[in-house]
Amino acid sequence: MVIDLNSDLGEGFGAYTMSDDAALLDVVTSANIACGFHGGDPVIMRRTCDLAVAHGVRIGAHISYRDLAGFGRREMMVSPAELTAESIYQIGALDGFARAAGDRVRYVKPHGALYHSAASDPAAAEAVVAALLAFEELSLLGPADSELARAAEAAGIPFHAEGFADRAYTPEGRLVPRGRAGAVLAAEAALGQAVSIAVDGHAHTVAGEQVRVEVRSLCVHGDSPDAVRMARSIRQSLLDKGVELRSFT
Amino acid sequence: MVIDLNSDLGEGFGAYTMSDDAALLDVVTSANIACGFHGGDPVIMRRTCDLAVAHGVRIGAHISYRDLAGFGRREMMVSPAELTAESIYQIGALDGFARAAGDRVRYVKPHGALYHSAASDPAAAEAVVAALLAFEELSLLGPADSELARAAEAAGIPFHAEGFADRAYTPEGRLVPRGRAGAVLAAEAALGQAVSIAVDGHAHTVAGEQVRVEVRSLCVHGDSPDAVRMARSIRQSLLDKGVELRSFT
Amino acid sequence: MVIDLNSDLGEGFGAYTMSDDAALLDVVTSANIACGFHGGDPVIMRRTCDLAVAHGVRIGAHISYRDLAGFGRREMMVSPAELTAESIYQIGALDGFARAAGDRVRYVKPHGALYHSAASDPAAAEAVVAALLAFEELSLLGPADSELARAAEAAGIPFHAEGFADRAYTPEGRLVPRGRAGAVLAAEAALGQAVSIAVDGHAHTVAGEQVRVEVRSLCVHGDSPDAVRMARSIRQSLLDKGVELRSFT
Amino acid sequence: MVIDLNSDLGEGFGAYTMSDDAALLDVVTSANIACGFHGGDPVIMRRTCDLAVAHGVRIGAHISYRDLAGFGRREMMVSPAELTAESIYQIGALDGFARAAGDRVRYVKPHGALYHSAASDPAAAEAVVAALLAFEELSLLGPADSELARAAEAAGIPFHAEGFADRAYTPEGRLVPRGRAGAVLAAEAALGQAVSIAVDGHAHTVAGEQVRVEVRSLCVHGDSPDAVRMARSIRQSLLDKGVELRSFT
Repeated sequence: MVIDLNSDLGEGFGAYTMSDDAALLDVVTSANIACGFHGGDPVIMRRTCDLAVAHGVRIGAHISYRDLAGFGRREMMVSPAELTAESIYQIGALDGFARAAGDRVRYVKPHGALYHSAASDPAAAEAVVAALLAFEELSLLGPADSELARAAEAAGIPFHAEGFADRAYTPEGRLVPRGRAGAVLAAEAALGQAVSIAVDGHAHTVAGEQVRVEVRSLCVHGDSPDAVRMARSIRQSLLDKGVELRSFT
Repeated sequence: MVIDLNSDLGEGFGAYTMSDDAALLDVVTSANIACGFHGGDPVIMRRTCDLAVAHGVRIGAHISYRDLAGFGRREMMVSPAELTAESIYQIGALDGFARAAGDRVRYVKPHGALYHSAASDPAAAEAVVAALLAFEELSLLGPADSELARAAEAAGIPFHAEGFADRAYTPEGRLVPRGRAGAVLAAEAALGQAVSIAVDGHAHTVAGEQVRVEVRSLCVHGDSPDAVRMARSIRQSLLDKGVELRSFT
Repeated sequence: MVIDLNSDLGEGFGAYTMSDDAALLDVVTSANIACGFHGGDPVIMRRTCDLAVAHGVRIGAHISYRDLAGFGRREMMVSPAELTAESIYQIGALDGFARAAGDRVRYVKPHGALYHSAASDPAAAEAVVAALLAFEELSLLGPADSELARAAEAAGIPFHAEGFADRAYTPEGRLVPRGRAGAVLAAEAALGQAVSIAVDGHAHTVAGEQVRVEVRSLCVHGDSPDAVRMARSIRQSLLDKGVELRSFT
Repeated sequence: MVIDLNSDLGEGFGAYTMSDDAALLDVVTSANIACGFHGGDPVIMRRTCDLAVAHGVRIGAHISYRDLAGFGRREMMVSPAELTAESIYQIGALDGFARAAGDRVRYVKPHGALYHSAASDPAAAEAVVAALLAFEELSLLGPADSELARAAEAAGIPFHAEGFADRAYTPEGRLVPRGRAGAVLAAEAALGQAVSIAVDGHAHTVAGEQVRVEVRSLCVHGDSPDAVRMARSIRQSLLDKGVELRSFT
């Protein structure tokens, strides 16, 4: 009964803020830190790495398409060579701050539109994995049973799957797309699913049935006061059930 | 009789090209590679690092203010903390490509407006040097007798001064500002000064008098066919005089 | 007894938000709308123009240095020709949305570091004014007794001065710099000063003495819930005293 | 026997240059001027508009996805509302410079990936056309028999089709995709096709057969010395055959 909690952090830019990074760092064990392509800037990256190390939280590179205007949520037709280069650039930049803080980037998680394309498109998945090979001992965090998982395995890169407390799953163990009825769970149900995923390895369908979901990490959100409260509740519920919170790296 | 030849490389961006990188890599022993803030993009950075390693040329981070529109030539009022963070970001990003190519970033040289502000402003110089401390074994390339040199010495960072074959010097050993009469030497005179700097440690004033200039590197340009020819001639002249061309790292 | 209320609006970018634009548009008579260089993007610009027209609020171009990372607050050494061209670009872009909403850009107000440099540097002031000449019937909003005012007058551009309810003034009628003791007025005093500026044409020094301040507009802020409340209070106080709120265009 | 010659101009950025704008302005009758999203910056836009007016060449807005790093050649999943807003922004910005030069933006031509998506995707085509409606008297330049043509017609926007002297056509009158054998014509054949399109309204297939191609404009390139020479030859050949070169606006 061990699980990791990850969250997207450091997504502000200049005068703009996004999540409550400080609050989240008291909750999670892994920080997906934006690298300047969809959010984040050098000052924010440095501060977030410093805070992560101070909290004993693992540093991951939250890599993205180069699309600040679209917050990395817009699919872009980027060639595999370009995608690999853009990924190395982002991981390397974050690694500078991680080293300055006394640690290293430990893992990579794609963001937004890149998360989706790397999950479903073998070429995109391989391009991302190729970037990890330029560094030592990086692991990959992403969706289970995806092209990303397959590409990582083929390259000998450790892959760790993540699940979602607040999302309903299909009977095949995939996320019900946002927008579908019942796709997003209410707070109570989400707390229950966090525990059931961590303790029993199962999530729930829209119909309320159990479905097998084996993940090493749960993704929690911090983009609103409610989200932060929810993240804290999930953490406490897991601790109450005797689940150990520990990074996968 | 040992000297290094350095040049600014990888300054294209996307569909845009700047210098003839491939030609320059046959000439120099140190490559100041743009890191995406004034020029350069991930694909170009990767290719330039790969080429540099293939040519046995040392990789340096050519860091800049974040000003692609101004090619890094416009002074910007950036706070020291921001300048350090932006420098770490750029060095780290380039280091990813250097590692992917089997080497590491070995040194840093500020570009454009940052070169000038870090030469004359102690706070800017210290901010740049602070970034180098986040990495291991980086040295600094810049103007002799500058705030950059002093800040590096104070921090225990190896500093190497660079000179210019094609520029006249003041009697105090500083560059005559561009625009002044006689500031830029003609080809013949520049070839002579390259040799005199490397062999005897002296350059020339506008009046043609000798002035002591002790530098470990000469900066050559590649932003036009003429510049590339000149760089080749300088290299050949130095070899003809028995000067050894070797990086300072 | 007529005054204009202006505020900085549309300063979000992509997924990022800044002020509460909708709330401010119920308060002000002139909207300084960001044009994408320090904040703002096409979608936000369009929405803000549409809302401004729906509220009967005048549209002004809040032009800035090209510095999204620094929110336009960092001084940059931009040549006059470049500054004029960057200003025309921003005004023209906003004018497209103003026309689409059935109105036009009516005035220009420089933002952040450009506000300060155009107030004190004649070359910067003239470069901004030169941009206005490319359009018809634009007026300029800025600090009284400034280079901007002088450059506008010299070019035949209508200039309107703005004051601040919440800032102490020097005996010479200039703003006491932020950071000095007493520079920022508490809520009660600010309400009083809003009325005294609009009704009597005087503001207050740090010592509490009256100083002549003749302005056609008051700048109110909306970057926090408190700021929005304050802006509403200022509006109500002015209306209670019989001051007419009307744009200067 | 009237035809327009159009070319992509003003595609440099900051220190970077792309085509030989001055040479092309002696050749064409319509200038597709980059608006800062794939290339172009305010200084270049202003200079290119000034030059176009001085040469009696019509000014068109060469609008693009926001993708300087990819020169607008990468397809991006941009929502219709965003695409309309980004188009208005670009047209408005260029119109500022056109007015400063004493003229107006007369037409719009999508660039790169947007050219292709607006040609084939009705939603993208309608989003672009919606932007034109925010301005007065704009016409649209693009590929014949496309979604762009249909959307323009539906909205009452004048549409003008363009052809290519140097490209082979399919028997259905569409361009043979680059990369296919025979897709790009040699200089001699291209000169012949320029004349046959302008005089007889027919182009050629890979097999050398005639195919009906009715266009009001021919697109010529200027991105190399050879391209400029070719553009000049096309102009001269048309004049020699008595074809009148005249803009469609």
